[in-house]
Amino acid sequence: MAKTSTKKSSAHKAGAAGPSERTAGGLDPQFLRRVVVENIYPEIDCGRFPIKRTTGETVLVSADVHTDGHDVIGASLLYRRQGEPQWSEVAMEPAGNDRYTGAFTVHALGRYEYTVEGWIDRFTTWRLEMSKKFGAGQDVTSELLEGAQLVHRALQAGGTGADDRDVSRHAPLSPRVEQLAQWAATLGDPALSPERRVVIALESDLQHAMAARADRRRRTRYDRVLEVIVEPERARFGAWYEMFPRSAGTDATRSATFTEAAARLSYVAGMGFDVLYLPPIHPIGRSFRKGPNNTLDAGPHDPGSPWAIGGEAGGHKAVEPGLGTLEDFDRFVDAARHHGLEIALDLAYQASPDHPYVSEHPEWFRRRPDGTIKYAENPPKKYQDIYPINFESEAWQALWHELKSVIEFWIGHGVRIFRVDNPHTKPYRFWQWALAEITREHPDAIFLAEAFTRPKVMKYLAKSGFSQSYTYFTWRNTSAELTAYFTELTQTEVREYMRPNLFANTPDILHEYLQRGGRAAFQVRLILAATLGASYGIYSGYELGENVPVKAGSEEYLDSEKYQIRLRDFDDPTSLAELVARVNTIRREHPALQRDWGLRFHPTDNSNLLSYSKRSEDGADVLLMVVNLDPATMQHGFVKLPLSDWGIGPERTIEVRDLLSEERYFWRGEWNYVRLDPQARAAHILSVQLPAVLGAEPAEPVPA
Amino acid sequence: MAKTSTKKSSAHKAGAAGPSERTAGGLDPQFLRRVVVENIYPEIDCGRFPIKRTTGETVLVSADVHTDGHDVIGASLLYRRQGEPQWSEVAMEPAGNDRYTGAFTVHALGRYEYTVEGWIDRFTTWRLEMSKKFGAGQDVTSELLEGAQLVHRALQAGGTGADDRDVSRHAPLSPRVEQLAQWAATLGDPALSPERRVVIALESDLQHAMAARADRRRRTRYDRVLEVIVEPERARFGAWYEMFPRSAGTDATRSATFTEAAARLSYVAGMGFDVLYLPPIHPIGRSFRKGPNNTLDAGPHDPGSPWAIGGEAGGHKAVEPGLGTLEDFDRFVDAARHHGLEIALDLAYQASPDHPYVSEHPEWFRRRPDGTIKYAENPPKKYQDIYPINFESEAWQALWHELKSVIEFWIGHGVRIFRVDNPHTKPYRFWQWALAEITREHPDAIFLAEAFTRPKVMKYLAKSGFSQSYTYFTWRNTSAELTAYFTELTQTEVREYMRPNLFANTPDILHEYLQRGGRAAFQVRLILAATLGASYGIYSGYELGENVPVKAGSEEYLDSEKYQIRLRDFDDPTSLAELVARVNTIRREHPALQRDWGLRFHPTDNSNLLSYSKRSEDGADVLLMVVNLDPATMQHGFVKLPLSDWGIGPERTIEVRDLLSEERYFWRGEWNYVRLDPQARAAHILSVQLPAVLGAEPAEPVPA
Repeated sequence: MAKTSTKKSSAHKAGAAGPSERTAGGLDPQFLRRVVVENIYPEIDCGRFPIKRTTGETVLVSADVHTDGHDVIGASLLYRRQGEPQWSEVAMEPAGNDRYTGAFTVHALGRYEYTVEGWIDRFTTWRLEMSKKFGAGQDVTSELLEGAQLVHRALQAGGTGADDRDVSRHAPLSPRVEQLAQWAATLGDPALSPERRVVIALESDLQHAMAARADRRRRTRYDRVLEVIVEPERARFGAWYEMFPRSAGTDATRSATFTEAAARLSYVAGMGFDVLYLPPIHPIGRSFRKGPNNTLDAGPHDPGSPWAIGGEAGGHKAVEPGLGTLEDFDRFVDAARHHGLEIALDLAYQASPDHPYVSEHPEWFRRRPDGTIKYAENPPKKYQDIYPINFESEAWQALWHELKSVIEFWIGHGVRIFRVDNPHTKPYRFWQWALAEITREHPDAIFLAEAFTRPKVMKYLAKSGFSQSYTYFTWRNTSAELTAYFTELTQTEVREYMRPNLFANTPDILHEYLQRGGRAAFQVRLILAATLGASYGIYSGYELGENVPVKAGSEEYLDSEKYQIRLRDFDDPTSLAELVARVNTIRREHPALQRDWGLRFHPTDNSNLLSYSKRSEDGADVLLMVVNLDPATMQHGFVKLPLSDWGIGPERTIEVRDLLSEERYFWRGEWNYVRLDPQARAAHILSVQLPAVLGAEPAEPVPA
Repeated sequence: MAKTSTKKSSAHKAGAAGPSERTAGGLDPQFLRRVVVENIYPEIDCGRFPIKRTTGETVLVSADVHTDGHDVIGASLLYRRQGEPQWSEVAMEPAGNDRYTGAFTVHALGRYEYTVEGWIDRFTTWRLEMSKKFGAGQDVTSELLEGAQLVHRALQAGGTGADDRDVSRHAPLSPRVEQLAQWAATLGDPALSPERRVVIALESDLQHAMAARADRRRRTRYDRVLEVIVEPERARFGAWYEMFPRSAGTDATRSATFTEAAARLSYVAGMGFDVLYLPPIHPIGRSFRKGPNNTLDAGPHDPGSPWAIGGEAGGHKAVEPGLGTLEDFDRFVDAARHHGLEIALDLAYQASPDHPYVSEHPEWFRRRPDGTIKYAENPPKKYQDIYPINFESEAWQALWHELKSVIEFWIGHGVRIFRVDNPHTKPYRFWQWALAEITREHPDAIFLAEAFTRPKVMKYLAKSGFSQSYTYFTWRNTSAELTAYFTELTQTEVREYMRPNLFANTPDILHEYLQRGGRAAFQVRLILAATLGASYGIYSGYELGENVPVKAGSEEYLDSEKYQIRLRDFDDPTSLAELVARVNTIRREHPALQRDWGLRFHPTDNSNLLSYSKRSEDGADVLLMVVNLDPATMQHGFVKLPLSDWGIGPERTIEVRDLLSEERYFWRGEWNYVRLDPQARAAHILSVQLPAVLGAEPAEPVPA
């Protein structure tokens, strides 16, 4: 009888017993399960939230498994796709200090489950004790008889050795019954010498046979089933380019069309980007439309903010007429696909005063006592071109269903990636429900959270289902800041559920470093983003070094594209497009850059020089980055290489090849000299030739 | 209608909904609860195990509480004695970064429960936003009308503002309805100036009134109820003395009686001990009785090991005839009480071959194939005088009940403290069940685990219900070892469920440091034990400096009292009894030494000098210890004082008084000189006179 995976041990709380399980003695038979399984890693908030992986990745699981006394235990990692009736299992190996580890690979999109079970391995216990006694010269006649009994009992257990058949074994084929009977007889045969019988008792075939038939009726299974949500590779790895399609034309007084914007696709694809992210493409409201530089009065040609969604032509399921029709959009998506680009749309749950929701569903908005709708505010700031939606409306259920249908609508038009605007101003529960529902139907959908907010809120959104998250990257500029932040992101538990997407700039964020640092600053931040992050992005204009703020001390762009058309000359000879293309090529050729894990920082003796390496999961691909964070001045110094991690002796010459310049260097020993002049190069991206004998990267740190 | 405390939010798992709660829209109303409560500290293994306190202690609770958007939240800590229908509550204060803290005191023995809830505080949110706008010179007429509406709504909510009445409020008395109506009217009164109305809106009386009536119908309560088990003070604080009563006489060929042993009570009490711990007092088996120094053949006068329990005269509920009768024992317990001593008995669940269990319940033991009972082994070692009990026996239920009844039997004879022998060789579940059952009846019972085993097993036993635990203290001798170990024990989560009892020696453990170090070594280890640990102990003979092992490299005593009577001359002039008495007096006079928390280590410039301080919970009592860990040689150097923790400026003179020598020193600045010559003194125990202005000790570190 297969047990369901979610059956909780009713007796788990100390002293409690399930009502139907008490026997005459009054004690719960669950108490006979002596093995403890605790402290599973990874586990997010006691199993409340799943961890995240992408197809083909590994889940390395560890747990504390122990029992009273000296008995030897066995531990298995159980896993399956959610909905499968049977568990698959893999034996867990001891890692010391009662910790056991095992791993499984997730191949399919969607959800997987995993848990751990432990049991007393009586045969191995017997084997160990018997051989200790024999080794000490003691008489083991009685022990051999016990061993024979154990083998005999395994025979009788019917070939399964477990009480529930919800585990399909990957153990070797059960030995033939005759073979086990033979072993039982041999062990107990007084005519054979003890030495002879001990040798037979220690045969590995017998050990495997007994392992296959281990009596697991009293096994302890961890009291929770943990989940993995498996997303597409693109959720982990990709280069993103943000572009306003309305600026893709030649006339600053009108929006370009999708057809015109399609002409820009080869440019974007040529730079090696994977995802083309478009700010909202919906009709833009007219009431209170913002003018250039966020002024309150828009002229007749001012296009307004794409985030002021909704007008005569429709709302979130419509296309801004200036861009074209829905069919034009469909063709644009197709064209992008032909260029190897996936389209990401901007999901902004808010409405301009002209949005159809306002007239059709006034109950979806908050009102003042005088009956007027409350526009967006962050007191004392006002955003009169935008009405926030009231997720707590009396009619919230219809509202939530409608908002979810917006996502489904665009999925129906071929979009799988959504960059979500300010998700931290909408209820967590909405996202948890909507994203779970959507991804059950469309496990290939990807959601990027743009939540520049407090750390715990940001993390909670990630836990709640967002595939990727913007981060504090733009505000991490010094060596110390970058090291601390990216160590946290890639070497602590947060990495199990939050994937960073490192945008070097956005329409809202032009960091001072870029304002002041000139062209070299743009090179530095591009290389940092593209090598620290498996997912990164730039907002168009970055490659042209656009760096003028609306005023000193502001992170807003002058003449921000949010409020006006921006025509650009992408053929400007000073463009960084070639560097971008080179970097994106390096990323595609090097698995080390295609994941966030495997990042390590290395000491330098110059705080302007940041050094870090990335390593692929199989350990074979290693890149070392050295970045001069000073955009103005040449910096040089020494970098310390992690020779022992790389399995390289201090006397050995290491060849490193700069993938940006094609130069080769021959290094030796721990500390090696680098010199980076911003005039010539902002950074090294070095491919390290490791000795052929190296195996996989050392296992990721897990809690002991 | 009072809700039960253990009702789990059925909709807690993302996307799930309780079957009876879906409405026509299909979405769970639980989704409207926007506040998140997560990451409560302290919490052991997701609430599986309770934390531990003693009567009168404080539980400081912290949690992450946050929501979407800008709304202000309120957070409460709920607590109650288990079984009480209503929660008490205390408001939690923000500690930064979305963390909130609150505290409650546990007064009664037994179990308490606690949890956290958070809600949107709409009035405070309104108040904050309104005052920002007003401060920015904006028109707040509409806002004031909204405020009036909020107050009006609070009026109508019926004076409770919450959907469930399972919380009894400690908020100030609800204001009279008329007063609230007055406020509502005032805020909405257009005849009054906005300025006037704003002032009224910001009145603190109104704020308190609205807090008392906060609408908590959509509050989020943490999805678990956490437990505290409250034990007697003695579980936290006490000096223990281990003594074999059979050695209290004058004849080495026979056991002394309890009556004779009672004559030793004034000696033990005179040294200031609180607990007198006796090895097993039950009949000792004759079969395979061990002789002196653990030899296999006992002579007619050899008393055998008290841990080989059971003989003709009975088993675990009987008294070894050599010691007397049960009535003699009762009198001994009484006599001890008159001396201010509590008796601790040794609970050793095992049997000699002569124990009545063996003949009456052969099914409670493991057998070999030839039918003989398996004696204790740790292959290749054998312990033929002891049969381990088979807790997995077919008749396990009757067995477990019988074993529990042993504890109840001795409780019936006035014993409340049990030192449990090798609990790690008995199933965890047995302890969880037995200790929970016993302490529900007898919440003043104390259990000390003697589990010298692997760290995770040791910790799991502590979680499972043991009030105190032996530790690795005897094997932590250097400054680095002591610092690391005691930092772990007192400043990490383990302190919430494991209380160390620092025995400086036991009948099984005579550490090499004591073997080699001479008298000074005994002084050092005594002072370390008695000042690092709120609970500590010595085994008799320690004060006499008994330091001879059975052979080089062994931690066993020569002529161990485990296997023979040991007559001692406690009047030996070299005895450390006076030092022990002095130290125990200092412990009784200084609250700083009566708890394990409040321990901090301080740098010294000489690794032979270990320096640490202890501070009482209210911060008033501060002791600084400096110990010369080198028992042979004078050591001197400088100790760094934590001046900022103590609120003392670097120029200020600090008076410290050595409680051992009564000398006073006047120190100034961070680094101060100490000199400790083992010939004269092993350590300083300094009382630090803090400036009168100091308040309570800085809050214990909590996770941010």
